[in-house]
Amino acid sequence: MPASAIRKLVPFADEAKSKGIKVFHLNVGAPDIKSPQCVLDAVRNNKLDHVSYSNSAGMMELRKAFAEKYYRKAGINIDPSELIVTTGGSEGIDIALQIACDEGDELLVMEPFYTNYYTFCYLNKINLKVVHTDISTGFRVPSIDEFEKLVTPRTKAVLVSNPGNPTGTLYSKEDMLALGDFCKKHDLFLISDEVYREFCYSDEPHFSAMNIPGLEQNVILLDSVSKRYNLCGVRIGCIISHNKDVIASALKFGQSRLCAPVYGQIATLGAMDTPDSYFEATKKEYIARRDYALGRLNAMEGVYSPVPGGAFYTIAQIPVDNAENFCKWMLTDFNYNGMTTMVTPAQSFYRTPGCGINHIRLAYVLEVPELEKAMDALEAGLKAYPGRMI
Amino acid sequence: MPASAIRKLVPFADEAKSKGIKVFHLNVGAPDIKSPQCVLDAVRNNKLDHVSYSNSAGMMELRKAFAEKYYRKAGINIDPSELIVTTGGSEGIDIALQIACDEGDELLVMEPFYTNYYTFCYLNKINLKVVHTDISTGFRVPSIDEFEKLVTPRTKAVLVSNPGNPTGTLYSKEDMLALGDFCKKHDLFLISDEVYREFCYSDEPHFSAMNIPGLEQNVILLDSVSKRYNLCGVRIGCIISHNKDVIASALKFGQSRLCAPVYGQIATLGAMDTPDSYFEATKKEYIARRDYALGRLNAMEGVYSPVPGGAFYTIAQIPVDNAENFCKWMLTDFNYNGMTTMVTPAQSFYRTPGCGINHIRLAYVLEVPELEKAMDALEAGLKAYPGRMI
Repeated sequence: MPASAIRKLVPFADEAKSKGIKVFHLNVGAPDIKSPQCVLDAVRNNKLDHVSYSNSAGMMELRKAFAEKYYRKAGINIDPSELIVTTGGSEGIDIALQIACDEGDELLVMEPFYTNYYTFCYLNKINLKVVHTDISTGFRVPSIDEFEKLVTPRTKAVLVSNPGNPTGTLYSKEDMLALGDFCKKHDLFLISDEVYREFCYSDEPHFSAMNIPGLEQNVILLDSVSKRYNLCGVRIGCIISHNKDVIASALKFGQSRLCAPVYGQIATLGAMDTPDSYFEATKKEYIARRDYALGRLNAMEGVYSPVPGGAFYTIAQIPVDNAENFCKWMLTDFNYNGMTTMVTPAQSFYRTPGCGINHIRLAYVLEVPELEKAMDALEAGLKAYPGRMI
Repeated sequence: MPASAIRKLVPFADEAKSKGIKVFHLNVGAPDIKSPQCVLDAVRNNKLDHVSYSNSAGMMELRKAFAEKYYRKAGINIDPSELIVTTGGSEGIDIALQIACDEGDELLVMEPFYTNYYTFCYLNKINLKVVHTDISTGFRVPSIDEFEKLVTPRTKAVLVSNPGNPTGTLYSKEDMLALGDFCKKHDLFLISDEVYREFCYSDEPHFSAMNIPGLEQNVILLDSVSKRYNLCGVRIGCIISHNKDVIASALKFGQSRLCAPVYGQIATLGAMDTPDSYFEATKKEYIARRDYALGRLNAMEGVYSPVPGGAFYTIAQIPVDNAENFCKWMLTDFNYNGMTTMVTPAQSFYRTPGCGINHIRLAYVLEVPELEKAMDALEAGLKAYPGRMI
């Protein structure tokens, strides 16, 4: 089992804190925004006196509420029977990969990608093959020829995250339709991870893979309430598909772990009443954070980061010999007026050898005044780092 | 992915109910007893305003409370760092098997066994080999020679459930020491599933595998709060081991799914204050149910069930051609004054071909007045069933 690259620096951060250094966490996508009040109330006012198993597919009341109160509004038309509640988005990834691929089958993913995609491929012995996207083009979807080159008889699925973690790239309707045509041509599953759907910063509405015409039997939608409602800890997500075999198979996996957490399901039922104003305020806040963080990053000597169109991450190229060493050094050997900044070395988001060695991922999950201090420390660290390459 | 044998009759039960038939559920271990008030209060009074990720190993406060408030009292001495909070006992089984066994390795289990042991072996491509225990001897642990016969260089672990699901068998200290000697001799992991620890009906205290002298580096304890506190839906369990490599590995699996459900962890923290009177009342209630259910079963013509020493299940041999057909027929073709009883065909708890074909598993999870009606319907069904073999 591979260790989490994102979490491997945590002991050094703990050590820095124990020495009294203030650490700004831009390393994980754990936002600082409150969960909606209606969620907190739903849990505090719950009437359960016996927390028994729910249905393995999820509480029917929740599946209905998802379909009617959330997805319909998001322009995704599904029947409650086409949705299985999962224990977070993580379980959804694990189950979807096992449904789409047997051992030794191949999955196509654009790099840089969310590292747990690799973890679950590793555990399920699925061969993850990457299509490279480059920082120099803002991580845009490359020509479909790049996907065609990788197709073999064992290719079973494409997995895409839109908007993407770790790049923040927002794919257009045209991008998604092109991927859809490719999947249709080769009869591949298109597994679409859309957990950052609410975090899109252009005027175009988000285009879901569920709305690609004619691909209904191939699309598996992965979703999570973690980021949308700032509910990372409730561990509730879902798998959605119009393909009945996919749902029947997902239910079998669901039965093996009995049910998704019931208090999390109650919280999520409460979340269905979240007012639009919550999302509007959150989005406005993230645009301000993004604009501030990207402005600061691109003003630093030797640093480049394309401006992300969604989610709350960005990948930056920095002038260092090795980003992992730099990230560690920031925690073990550096502070700026008693403060330092923790970011994630990005090499583990790539599979192509040598790629991303001088890239970092930042999650702009702090308020602007905090971000300002975090950027000050990062800038000072880049200047002081012994392995600076400029 | 194999379908759950336990859940495959559910649509027939739903159909019976839609026709107005009252179905008594003795088919799943979902008790009808209320969760402790301190748990319900802990959740209702929680002060969280942002449900963010907990540590992947579980909230430190909860790990400490488990060690100090629960395990110490249960006679199991552990440090909080030796415990990883899991998403229910199910995740614990999955993780422990993957830690102990690589693909193609062999696991020894006494049959009949909890069917999800097989599910997780199947998913992880672990070869489950069974040591038969027989209804005629009350499912006692057979001679260690039966285990010795199965040992190969690929044997990595023994998995035991004590008290056991589906048989309710309670293993003695001597049984556990003998299994411990066997594991020590061949340097195998002993994975001990003790989720029914509180449900022991003899005067002897429960003997945990954690207390087998000299086996500290080999024992992996699996636990869950589901049954103990009637909290099946919170999805909280744990993996415990004195072996640091086991815990380090379990943490990596924990990181891949980010964290266990936070509201479930809060509920479990509340559960640590459950008064002894709760367990005493529960135990007394289950002894009454067991005595009633077993008395009725063994008084039915052609039925035999050994009296279980723990948990809340029993396996009964019934006079039918095929227990699965009988269980289905009870739902589709039979009712007794508008009532019927749902039980689980037990063949899927065995791996030896032909074993258990006329066995059923009953969970005595209803109050005695309800059990009485359930037993009346079962008895009448056995008399009326066309495939009766007597």
